[in-house]
Formats: sequence, structure tokens, C-alpha cells
Amino acid sequence: MRARVFVTLKRSVLDPQGKAIQGALETLGYPEVEEVRVGKVIEITLKDGERSAARARLEEMCRRLLANPVIEDYRVEFEAEPSGARETEPTSAKDPA
Amino acid sequence: MRARVFVTLKRSVLDPQGKAIQGALETLGYPEVEEVRVGKVIEITLKDGERSAARARLEEMCRRLLANPVIEDYRVEFEAEPSGARETEPTSAKDPA
Repeated sequence: MRARVFVTLKRSVLDPQGKAIQGALETLGYPEVEEVRVGKVIEITLKDGERSAARARLEEMCRRLLANPVIEDYRVEFEAEPSGARETEPTSAKDPA
Repeated sequence: MRARVFVTLKRSVLDPQGKAIQGALETLGYPEVEEVRVGKVIEITLKDGERSAARARLEEMCRRLLANPVIEDYRVEFEAEPSGARETEPTSAKDPA
């Protein structure tokens, strides 16, 4: 079972890396870019098991290690099984603040 | 129009950050974690326009600035319009190698 954890800065937190990319894209000739924000995606392969239990465990991992809830939001998504079509299942956004 | 660009290390490239997280999760009591890989997600807000043209521009940005095609893969996804349901449209994976 594969999950993706998205860890992004809260909207209220300044993102200098995103601003730098935005400026570089403008310089390179992409004026259509209005905003850039950079986050992390953590791809986690888990032993097979029940998905709702896995979600609870993954959210615990986010709170304990993967995200800094003071400045970051996190979101857990599951990938479809390798045998199936490659879809992601959009899931609840968590904003612990 | 909002797009997400995923930049991840190629499978053949060692990911020390992922290995460190994997080790930490095992120490914290999550033995179900089999593998961890860390990548970047770049959220880009674009002026509204035609989606296929935007995709071509975004893939060009990846090749020119956002990704290092020697060691990284990239993938572009679009988010649904803010008025609609919050879905992502899974799109073609690009492996320029």
C-alpha cells in the first residue's frame, strides 16, 4: 500500500523558496505565473492492511515527525493498488491550527 | 488555474532524506513502514487560460528550472477550479531519461 503525505507551509507563512522560484520563472519569460509555493511530498510504502487504520497511523506520523504543525499543514492521500488504475483518492485536509 | 508539479528523485537514485525518515519512523514505533522517498511539490497559480497550453508551458518550466532531469522525474497535475469540487486530474508521468 502506497501513501503520499503532502507537507506544505500554511498560507499565512512566508515561503522564500517559492518567491525565489517565482522570480526566476518571471525572468525566464513566464509572466503567467502568479504565485509559487513549495512543499514536500513524502511517498510512504506500507505493509498491506486496513486503509482507515493506516490513515490514522500516517496522521500520527505527521504530527510526531513529518510536519511542524505550527507552520505547516499536512494531507494524506492513498495511491491505488499497483494492479488497479493509477488514481489517487483525495482525502481530508488537516489543518491542526 | 492552479497546478501542482511533483519533482521526485528517480527510483535508481539514493534518497538519504527518505532513509533517515524511514529510520526515525521505525525508532518511533512504526514497523509497517517499508520505504520512504521524499520529493518536492511545487504549487503554481497561473493566469487563467487553456489547460493544454498551460501544461506544455509547465513542462517546459520543469525542464528549464524546476527539475534536474539527470536525477529527477517530474509530473504535472491540475487542480479543479476553485468553484468546482476539489479534485486533481491525474496526468502523464514524464521520465525524460
